[in-house]
Amino acid sequence: MDDSRLIVDTKYFTFTNHDRKFIFDSGESLPEITIAYETYGVLNQNRDNAILILHALSGDAHVAGVYENDQRLGWWDSMVGPNKAIDTNKYFVICSNVIGGCCGSSGPSSINPLTKKPYALEFPIITIFDMVRAQKYLIDHLGIDKLLSVVGGSMGGMQVLAWAALFPDRIQSAIPIATTLKHSPQQIAFDEVGRQAIMADPDWCDGNYYGLKIPQRGLAVARMIGHITYMSEDSMEKKFSRRLKDKKYSFSFMADFEVEGYLRYRGDSFVKRFDANSYLYITKAMDYFNLSDEFLFENEAVRDVRFLVISFNSDWLYPSYQSRAIVNLLKSKMINSTYCDIDSNYGHDAFLLEVDQQSHIVEHFLTNTHNLCKKD
Amino acid sequence: MDDSRLIVDTKYFTFTNHDRKFIFDSGESLPEITIAYETYGVLNQNRDNAILILHALSGDAHVAGVYENDQRLGWWDSMVGPNKAIDTNKYFVICSNVIGGCCGSSGPSSINPLTKKPYALEFPIITIFDMVRAQKYLIDHLGIDKLLSVVGGSMGGMQVLAWAALFPDRIQSAIPIATTLKHSPQQIAFDEVGRQAIMADPDWCDGNYYGLKIPQRGLAVARMIGHITYMSEDSMEKKFSRRLKDKKYSFSFMADFEVEGYLRYRGDSFVKRFDANSYLYITKAMDYFNLSDEFLFENEAVRDVRFLVISFNSDWLYPSYQSRAIVNLLKSKMINSTYCDIDSNYGHDAFLLEVDQQSHIVEHFLTNTHNLCKKD
Repeated sequence: MDDSRLIVDTKYFTFTNHDRKFIFDSGESLPEITIAYETYGVLNQNRDNAILILHALSGDAHVAGVYENDQRLGWWDSMVGPNKAIDTNKYFVICSNVIGGCCGSSGPSSINPLTKKPYALEFPIITIFDMVRAQKYLIDHLGIDKLLSVVGGSMGGMQVLAWAALFPDRIQSAIPIATTLKHSPQQIAFDEVGRQAIMADPDWCDGNYYGLKIPQRGLAVARMIGHITYMSEDSMEKKFSRRLKDKKYSFSFMADFEVEGYLRYRGDSFVKRFDANSYLYITKAMDYFNLSDEFLFENEAVRDVRFLVISFNSDWLYPSYQSRAIVNLLKSKMINSTYCDIDSNYGHDAFLLEVDQQSHIVEHFLTNTHNLCKKD
Repeated sequence: MDDSRLIVDTKYFTFTNHDRKFIFDSGESLPEITIAYETYGVLNQNRDNAILILHALSGDAHVAGVYENDQRLGWWDSMVGPNKAIDTNKYFVICSNVIGGCCGSSGPSSINPLTKKPYALEFPIITIFDMVRAQKYLIDHLGIDKLLSVVGGSMGGMQVLAWAALFPDRIQSAIPIATTLKHSPQQIAFDEVGRQAIMADPDWCDGNYYGLKIPQRGLAVARMIGHITYMSEDSMEKKFSRRLKDKKYSFSFMADFEVEGYLRYRGDSFVKRFDANSYLYITKAMDYFNLSDEFLFENEAVRDVRFLVISFNSDWLYPSYQSRAIVNLLKSKMINSTYCDIDSNYGHDAFLLEVDQQSHIVEHFLTNTHNLCKKD
């Protein structure tokens, strides 16, 4: 094994409504909330080298490295680690699973301490702001007054923007990647069809499937729809073209084309690691997200946040024009912001795959930001 | 009622393998095949004014006018009728339901005369070429030696191209609209997810649901996916934006946004009129379609066919570059072809909705073609 590979473990932070008041945007509350998180590197004495990474729809707290007994690499290990763009030799990196998720943080599959049963749809509908408010309590708990940066792609980028809106005085900088101020109706439509596929599965049972058969067919279809939107037409052409799995057409409804086999495989493997109700909750949170100007600039402290906005020119799920809208808004308010539209063939997946160019840009931005905050 | 409105009825043409040999591309055959069709206008004495219209995935033979007892307008009534682009005062217009379909022509929901039960998945897998070979027998039956034109959008355009490849000596001209020489992996992927949604529905029962509960949830999801691809991002924005059905978020999994309500409605209404197995068969036929150059030019007679190729610049399901590929291929072989990329906001739906510009172009092309063939 690579000696420089990080060995990490997942930690848990639990708070009750008694410790820290937490009212969801829906108006509801829970007796207690747990956040699963991982940290990498060391918090320096000035406590000014902490970076919070926010994950996308199907991500988790495991952003980098491996576990002692599980060699599965973190989802952004290419960008986070010793001597990487987000250098864990220099920075103290934190990544937490969003509330509503299914990878350790409180979500619909968590046990309700009052009933001793999974919440299922009794779990409150969440928003991106709810996710961020819970993260803020984690940051408090870790004793960090000001984060050097908040960084994330896709839904992670929405959380970055929500941090800037809700707690601008707690961040030096913000790096929203391949994201948007709000979902367009087309983005809502793709999410809604995924949700409909899950809710159409009779095994979904109005969300009460825990301990029973899971709605795997519906969730697999939802994931397949997602995968189409994550790739560019061109990257699909390069990866699959019209290549057949066997040499000729099956003249049946078997998967004839490699792209069909790929989608089926991705659908089937997803259901083994992801909870269908979490899929519903998290996509709904994304659809609800709508960062209006008024809200973003309500707290004057946002004017001191430095922004790096990144998009990828083949991303048709979160097209570059949505990132330009973020930049235009920031520039119109004279906020320090840099924009990079990276040339890439990978579509939306580029934020996970386009390592070289992204590394270069992110690394320099973080170094500059850190130098600036040292001067302050 | 508008006096100029056509009153039509559906006719049926049935042939047996004894009458006319019909081997599907799969190698299979059926004891008999029925084609449902409608005609409009009058075949002239020279029998040179007949136009065959080919329908898309969910279309049928009812291209124009109304029935005596059903005021439902045909699916291209805006383009076909007295004094319209495809003028039924001048032309004899024919439209037939594709085999594999569920609107009168033989398909998986048809009764197998040998078993007296619906074929279900015993129906042979069909190809676009199979559809066209069956149409050719209908044209023979109608006593038409040479069609003035074959016209169709989307899958209808694939049939147009297949006519040019298989029976170029039977057509004067061809108008493929918003179509392609072959599906890209992205187009296959969208179709495959729709099929997976249907086949994941336990009510599908391996296709044997006739007389029982139909797989309506799966078919509705498939249709919703389709609808997203038929509209442009921009037309969705114009039609729905982020407007809510009620004034505020429901904080539930109800349809919050108008676009969600629209998709659910379109899904639910589709299942009332369309057979899920036909959806599987027809999408598979589209995915299999791959018109290689060699095949298109095998029969020299194609060099005498005049082509009008039309695309719409906001169509992202069958993007303009796919129509340009058709034109490039034709031009490279010195075949008479005209290309129009129509400026439209409607996405793929434009071939049904963008009436004015399309009418102008199609009307003139047909008039010119008819004048040329009169001279011959």
